[in-house]
Amino acid sequence: MGTLLVVGSVALDTVRTPFGEATEVLGGSATYFSVAASYFAAVNLIAVVGEDFPEQHIKFLKSRNIDLSGLERRPGSTFRWKGEYTYQLNEAHTLDTRLNVFETFRPKIPEAYRSPDLLFLGNIDPNLQLEVLRQVKRPSLVACDTMNFWIEGKPDALWRMLKEVDVLIINDGEARLLGRDSNLVQVAKTILSKGPKHLIVKRGEYGVLMFTRDHVFGAPAFPLEQVKDPTGAGDTFAGGFMGYLAATGNLSDVSIRQAIVFGSVMASFTVEAFSLDRLRILDYKEIEARFREFKRLTHFEDLA
Amino acid sequence: MGTLLVVGSVALDTVRTPFGEATEVLGGSATYFSVAASYFAAVNLIAVVGEDFPEQHIKFLKSRNIDLSGLERRPGSTFRWKGEYTYQLNEAHTLDTRLNVFETFRPKIPEAYRSPDLLFLGNIDPNLQLEVLRQVKRPSLVACDTMNFWIEGKPDALWRMLKEVDVLIINDGEARLLGRDSNLVQVAKTILSKGPKHLIVKRGEYGVLMFTRDHVFGAPAFPLEQVKDPTGAGDTFAGGFMGYLAATGNLSDVSIRQAIVFGSVMASFTVEAFSLDRLRILDYKEIEARFREFKRLTHFEDLA
Repeated sequence: MGTLLVVGSVALDTVRTPFGEATEVLGGSATYFSVAASYFAAVNLIAVVGEDFPEQHIKFLKSRNIDLSGLERRPGSTFRWKGEYTYQLNEAHTLDTRLNVFETFRPKIPEAYRSPDLLFLGNIDPNLQLEVLRQVKRPSLVACDTMNFWIEGKPDALWRMLKEVDVLIINDGEARLLGRDSNLVQVAKTILSKGPKHLIVKRGEYGVLMFTRDHVFGAPAFPLEQVKDPTGAGDTFAGGFMGYLAATGNLSDVSIRQAIVFGSVMASFTVEAFSLDRLRILDYKEIEARFREFKRLTHFEDLA
Repeated sequence: MGTLLVVGSVALDTVRTPFGEATEVLGGSATYFSVAASYFAAVNLIAVVGEDFPEQHIKFLKSRNIDLSGLERRPGSTFRWKGEYTYQLNEAHTLDTRLNVFETFRPKIPEAYRSPDLLFLGNIDPNLQLEVLRQVKRPSLVACDTMNFWIEGKPDALWRMLKEVDVLIINDGEARLLGRDSNLVQVAKTILSKGPKHLIVKRGEYGVLMFTRDHVFGAPAFPLEQVKDPTGAGDTFAGGFMGYLAATGNLSDVSIRQAIVFGSVMASFTVEAFSLDRLRILDYKEIEARFREFKRLTHFEDLA
């Protein structure tokens, strides 16, 4: 089993959806990623929190066997995000963002973490993502996320970083912005010509598309009876995806497709409750069962 | 091979998209349906056109072996639709609709057509859809389409009609309106409790979901490098779907899933050009090849 290193945010979220609300609950891209990945592999987490970060969350992350030696605790407050969703659950409306200690976050990779087998660069300044890459021995697979803010604000640094990345995992709208086209096949051509060997486009309730130079793979999202809170679905997807690859150590095309399905499975659990509440009580048997349901969802030949 | 009867519209369309425009070209739900289905099975078409309907279109439909004994030619003008699409190709903006002879259309099924194996009730007044059902011996499979206008304007007639239908094929937004819920799983429960055994939800570039009481099947849309005009994609889907079922005579779960994939394949061709231009030059070998590509698009185990 390979080691998996993730750099990103740990936050306290306040979220309202048509189905309820949650105040100052555990959130952040690296949090969702790590907890999802922890079902498959050992995770080393690089992030920063403030003095006010509740001890219970530390305990929870440790209980998932996530190594927190790289979780800095700094004077000041933890990153806060406040947002809401309408019935159109695909899109979050940010009400308030307080970066707090995250604003001056400079990821420092502890000596013991510098040879990860897999690395996930969460959505932070592309210059910081590059700094992380400089600190580690080249992993066998590097994946990253980014967002509109960096695509528009720091395109040069972003493209420099993408040159060194194997898998770019971003959402629909970000992909179109980055590839400067409304057509995703054209977008994929542009992005894949600049470094990444895989482009994974997250489309919320519509599932995922993965483009390589020669193939496309499409997986629908698992249709759920109740979606309570979509927050963290994308980061959970990435965590399940990278966790599975770390667990198997197999980076073949088939393995990457299966990793996408495991990522989708993990995301389908996350959205069933607020914060990481569904992941807290998740059992590996449930993951396997939903993976099997995914086959029945998508196969049109042998339905065994 | 079974006989397939379709009732719907034949129209002349004027369409503008970011990739071009077409004026007074062949369109209409029953047209797209019939031509798509004609690649798999013999089709009997029930529709109405005006005196101005160009003879070349009649010739084209006949060349596809579509039986036109049920195509009425009436005094007055043919149904006209004018619409446009922005880069957000999933949604048509209607600029003008002239029902003309279609306004007083009362489908009369010729004696020879009254025992179809499969019947597709295109998007017309649900009372007329019921009238068609009264005129035929119960086919082994009845599918139908509808739209917001009837869901809001004639809900009672619509539900009465749906009681007698096996497969309802509608788009995302229509499904949510009909099932009065934003969650498609809930929507499916409501609709499947009132008659249809299969609900097929068309989601444009995001593909298709099929719900039955026990299963869900999801197929992504085929990712295309160039989508020129999405007009008729949904009707083409329905035509490929029903045509395949008519050809095989097999209504098993696996066969219905494969029919959905063939429907998706046909729709993926239609959108590559304006009007039915791509279908005019389509070869059955291309259909089979894209069906195979669909397996590679969706499978995550054996990629053979």
